[in-house]
Amino acid sequence: MMSKKLLVDVDCGVDDAQAIMIALAAPNVELLGITCVHGNTTVENVCKNTLRVLQACNRLEIPVFKGAAKPILGNSINAGNFHGQDGLGDAPDPNAPSLDMVQKEDAVSALIRIINQNPGEVTLVATAPLTNLALAVRLDPSLPSKLRGLYIMGGNTESRGNTTVCGEFNFTADPEAAYIVLNDYQCPTYLACWEFTCYSKLSWEFCDAWLAQDTDKARFMAQIFRHSIKASQSEHFEKEFVAGTGFISCDSYAFAAAIDDSFVKESDHYPVSVELTGTHTRGMMIVDTAGFMNKAHKAFIMKKVDMEKFERMMMAALK
Amino acid sequence: MMSKKLLVDVDCGVDDAQAIMIALAAPNVELLGITCVHGNTTVENVCKNTLRVLQACNRLEIPVFKGAAKPILGNSINAGNFHGQDGLGDAPDPNAPSLDMVQKEDAVSALIRIINQNPGEVTLVATAPLTNLALAVRLDPSLPSKLRGLYIMGGNTESRGNTTVCGEFNFTADPEAAYIVLNDYQCPTYLACWEFTCYSKLSWEFCDAWLAQDTDKARFMAQIFRHSIKASQSEHFEKEFVAGTGFISCDSYAFAAAIDDSFVKESDHYPVSVELTGTHTRGMMIVDTAGFMNKAHKAFIMKKVDMEKFERMMMAALK
Amino acid sequence: MMSKKLLVDVDCGVDDAQAIMIALAAPNVELLGITCVHGNTTVENVCKNTLRVLQACNRLEIPVFKGAAKPILGNSINAGNFHGQDGLGDAPDPNAPSLDMVQKEDAVSALIRIINQNPGEVTLVATAPLTNLALAVRLDPSLPSKLRGLYIMGGNTESRGNTTVCGEFNFTADPEAAYIVLNDYQCPTYLACWEFTCYSKLSWEFCDAWLAQDTDKARFMAQIFRHSIKASQSEHFEKEFVAGTGFISCDSYAFAAAIDDSFVKESDHYPVSVELTGTHTRGMMIVDTAGFMNKAHKAFIMKKVDMEKFERMMMAALK
Amino acid sequence: MMSKKLLVDVDCGVDDAQAIMIALAAPNVELLGITCVHGNTTVENVCKNTLRVLQACNRLEIPVFKGAAKPILGNSINAGNFHGQDGLGDAPDPNAPSLDMVQKEDAVSALIRIINQNPGEVTLVATAPLTNLALAVRLDPSLPSKLRGLYIMGGNTESRGNTTVCGEFNFTADPEAAYIVLNDYQCPTYLACWEFTCYSKLSWEFCDAWLAQDTDKARFMAQIFRHSIKASQSEHFEKEFVAGTGFISCDSYAFAAAIDDSFVKESDHYPVSVELTGTHTRGMMIVDTAGFMNKAHKAFIMKKVDMEKFERMMMAALK
Ligand SMILES: [Ca+2]
Ligand SMILES: [Ca+2]
Ligand SMILES: [Ca+2]
Ligand SMILES: [Ca+2]
Repeated sequence: MMSKKLLVDVDCGVDDAQAIMIALAAPNVELLGITCVHGNTTVENVCKNTLRVLQACNRLEIPVFKGAAKPILGNSINAGNFHGQDGLGDAPDPNAPSLDMVQKEDAVSALIRIINQNPGEVTLVATAPLTNLALAVRLDPSLPSKLRGLYIMGGNTESRGNTTVCGEFNFTADPEAAYIVLNDYQCPTYLACWEFTCYSKLSWEFCDAWLAQDTDKARFMAQIFRHSIKASQSEHFEKEFVAGTGFISCDSYAFAAAIDDSFVKESDHYPVSVELTGTHTRGMMIVDTAGFMNKAHKAFIMKKVDMEKFERMMMAALK
Repeated sequence: MMSKKLLVDVDCGVDDAQAIMIALAAPNVELLGITCVHGNTTVENVCKNTLRVLQACNRLEIPVFKGAAKPILGNSINAGNFHGQDGLGDAPDPNAPSLDMVQKEDAVSALIRIINQNPGEVTLVATAPLTNLALAVRLDPSLPSKLRGLYIMGGNTESRGNTTVCGEFNFTADPEAAYIVLNDYQCPTYLACWEFTCYSKLSWEFCDAWLAQDTDKARFMAQIFRHSIKASQSEHFEKEFVAGTGFISCDSYAFAAAIDDSFVKESDHYPVSVELTGTHTRGMMIVDTAGFMNKAHKAFIMKKVDMEKFERMMMAALK
Repeated sequence: MMSKKLLVDVDCGVDDAQAIMIALAAPNVELLGITCVHGNTTVENVCKNTLRVLQACNRLEIPVFKGAAKPILGNSINAGNFHGQDGLGDAPDPNAPSLDMVQKEDAVSALIRIINQNPGEVTLVATAPLTNLALAVRLDPSLPSKLRGLYIMGGNTESRGNTTVCGEFNFTADPEAAYIVLNDYQCPTYLACWEFTCYSKLSWEFCDAWLAQDTDKARFMAQIFRHSIKASQSEHFEKEFVAGTGFISCDSYAFAAAIDDSFVKESDHYPVSVELTGTHTRGMMIVDTAGFMNKAHKAFIMKKVDMEKFERMMMAALK
Repeated sequence: MMSKKLLVDVDCGVDDAQAIMIALAAPNVELLGITCVHGNTTVENVCKNTLRVLQACNRLEIPVFKGAAKPILGNSINAGNFHGQDGLGDAPDPNAPSLDMVQKEDAVSALIRIINQNPGEVTLVATAPLTNLALAVRLDPSLPSKLRGLYIMGGNTESRGNTTVCGEFNFTADPEAAYIVLNDYQCPTYLACWEFTCYSKLSWEFCDAWLAQDTDKARFMAQIFRHSIKASQSEHFEKEFVAGTGFISCDSYAFAAAIDDSFVKESDHYPVSVELTGTHTRGMMIVDTAGFMNKAHKAFIMKKVDMEKFERMMMAALK
């Protein structure tokens, strides 16, 4: 497997942390930088959480950039409390790195600069509201054509929402950004959508074994993950899961697909967009299976992935 | 099985015809009347088609009522050409009954009158845009409380559309009516949605055997069905079907469920509504699996039905 | 002046009462009936208020019909408290007529019957949410062609709202009904819009003289009007008036125009419609001054009226 | 009068050109730069047009920056042909400056840099779709607090549109950007809206005298203005003007107000926003006269300006 240059955009909740740790453990990955954006928590918390994850993995040399604090229109939705108020399970961390370690360059400028410095080589992975990516393409319309590929966790395919009745969190938190990215990034695009991640869940037994590894990384994960595990098993959140509760590390699927081209076993290939104006459907992803939209560009929508490989990548992440 | 009083509202295309013929053949059904509405074709054609079906079955004593010519807001969508321009495959019928046989009373008044005359006894089946039902409940808000049950073919559960990218025909042809009916008919409500009918399709082999019966009814059906069979197998329509092409008699599932309480083997029970304002999702059914809408009334959404029973009812319809 | 057959649809608040009393006092008017609809208060209160007005004028022989209790979509807005909770200033009326005096026939059926019995002769005046009119035209599409004219109080021309930021009460209380009426009633249509009624206000001095008349009608009016006068002069409502507070009897302008063809001195003649989907503009009237909508039918939008005549009609109403 | 630092954002059509020439002629103005954006024509044409105006005034030392080529969502509307295809009347200009003279720095970065380098001193004038300003505030949320003031030509106050039935061009060409700017720029904000510019039009007689000045600037203006003058007097465009045709240099009012604090004689002071989701009203400005929106920040909406001063500034612009 050739080495891959990854640039990742996160709103570092617990599953972003898991996904980043997969990337840090992957032998073939060069992580060019991590851009942060509002989402699970404030963008300042996201920066801090990202630095904590890098610290836990002894990789603080990877540059972290602060991006948009608000969605395109400026109206933040409540992120709920699935990952805790601070996005990482509200676990105390007295030795957290200082925000001084965040780069002076802002995230959108960094995205534009890094992609232009590595034309055709960067795989962009976004597991957060897509505000940074949307702003970047409006400032530099040539950006998508310079990407190797774009991997997104977000959206939904069967109108099942986890944030509103039909809206998945990352898309609903900034519908305009999702619309811009799905319409303007005409590069190879791979989507790990909400229902897919539910159908591809891991067992709680795997989770136990995963966290039981005798490593600092596993102990870090156990600490930040406690809150979400409890939430996953609460009556309130159980109804949101499409096929029953379980260990669903949403963002990790997008990272795994970006890291390993053979990870995705089956996908649909359809034009996609985002509903912006619905009363119940604002933020819902639109999948045009029958060609009603007359749109040329199509995205790959993940349907089946190599779950054994996924478990191996997850295990390695905490080694 | 106790005898059932059915009142049915149709836009008599070919599948409405099939469904009506199932009801006419059912031993336990008393068909109180057929109300007609715009949809697959003009309401005048719908009346004529309904009379033709009754004639083919020697049941012209059943009263037929003409209802709304346009959806609530007045803007008709194009019905496409799946069932032919006239809704019954554009098959010549020189002996079609005259429109003089349609009742003088309008459909909405008839719905209100018949239901009030049979309080608690009428099972209402609607396999068309829901304009008549919506007008009736606004004129007589007590109507739903006097129904035994309401069976609807319409809407969708996975955002798969057959008329717009996310819109099923009956709901999209009059989204306001569908909204009114799903919100104001707080009686036991059973939905045969688009994806369900696709997943529950019959085989073309069954269709061949079905039409090969040596009866006048089978010959009538073969004639009016020819156009839709061909359309079903065209590249254009194939993409609209959710799980591949096949013999999908949408409206018949709603009738079968209304006729036989044991027909539905498995159903979901969720609050439902209709999106009215979306750019891509106007007319889409909303299924509130996780309780975001704080709505008390829930509909039964059919998931699995007794397909052997279905085949028997279909076969009997052409006997 | 020839005698005119008026049919009026009201949500009998205080200004509806004033308008009805103008019609009752007009020598050339035959009032065929009064249809009631939800709006300022419940449709039951509207029926009761209408009967009280007729009683105060000794005209209880005029038939009163009960219509829609809810707007087309079924979601009532709060009517505020401008006319009091009961719509007539919450003034005690121990001798109010019983609701038994309301006709058995419902309002929509009555509208259809009366207009069909008097083809080309009925002037319809609507000073309430347009639910009844919308239902009537969907049941009988020929209705508008049989009207002499339609006079409406409702809508706005400069995006000034009194109920929402851009929404006038009668239109915002049932936007779908207003849309249906403005699009389907292709008869001569005259609109007394919110800003026009504000620009055409009477002085409080006139109001004092008006109420000071030594008649039972004036005493009745003084009693039911007290609440609204106080509200008009409150800080809360003052901001809603377009050109300063004053005595604005909105509904009376539509009645005056219907009664006397020479009342309207100047009007615009433009296609009009209603916004249904805006976040801030749902219910706002759309005036197509420049021909963007390609719509043939145009409404007369009142701009200047004969204020001396208006004062005379008002004075006569309480004589 | 103290010297003023102006930064201006244009889509250099003919009225932008007139406005820029007013600023260049004003003795107290320091023009820090001109940022260009899509609108009347492509952003490339806008850059070229801006350079041509500067060349006509011998001021090519003023830096010109290229900004967004598309609105926030990416869907351009047709700019019509009021100012000609090239935005400056399609008048031949063989000596037009080369696009090489456009700065390397992009417009949004320039806006952020210049305002941060001159905290509290920059008066920003925007007479185009507000895409650049919207992107800038999302990248640097502190920007508005560092402005002396913001002057915008755009929006409407009485629901009169010149691009759609209720939409003014600059706002309708990028409703999301207008929304962002009106909500996020909480600095002193002054709006020259469409109806105001129509009510404040100059006479064609003034225009004749203005263009008859014996100067190169007047000859340049006569050449680029010919197309728009003819369009203004065409039947098609006449209907769009609110109070009859005339010489309406829309963008010049915003510039004049920015240049001279005593120019605005009367203004309203209300919260404003933009409708994003209406069928007919998308892009319409919302003026909250009665406090329905619970919004603290208010904009100054120009109502009356010093027309003598305006004529003097216009005359000076071509001297
Ligand atoms: Ca995430
Ligand atoms: Ca049907
Ligand atoms: Ca009223
Ligand atoms: Ca401009």
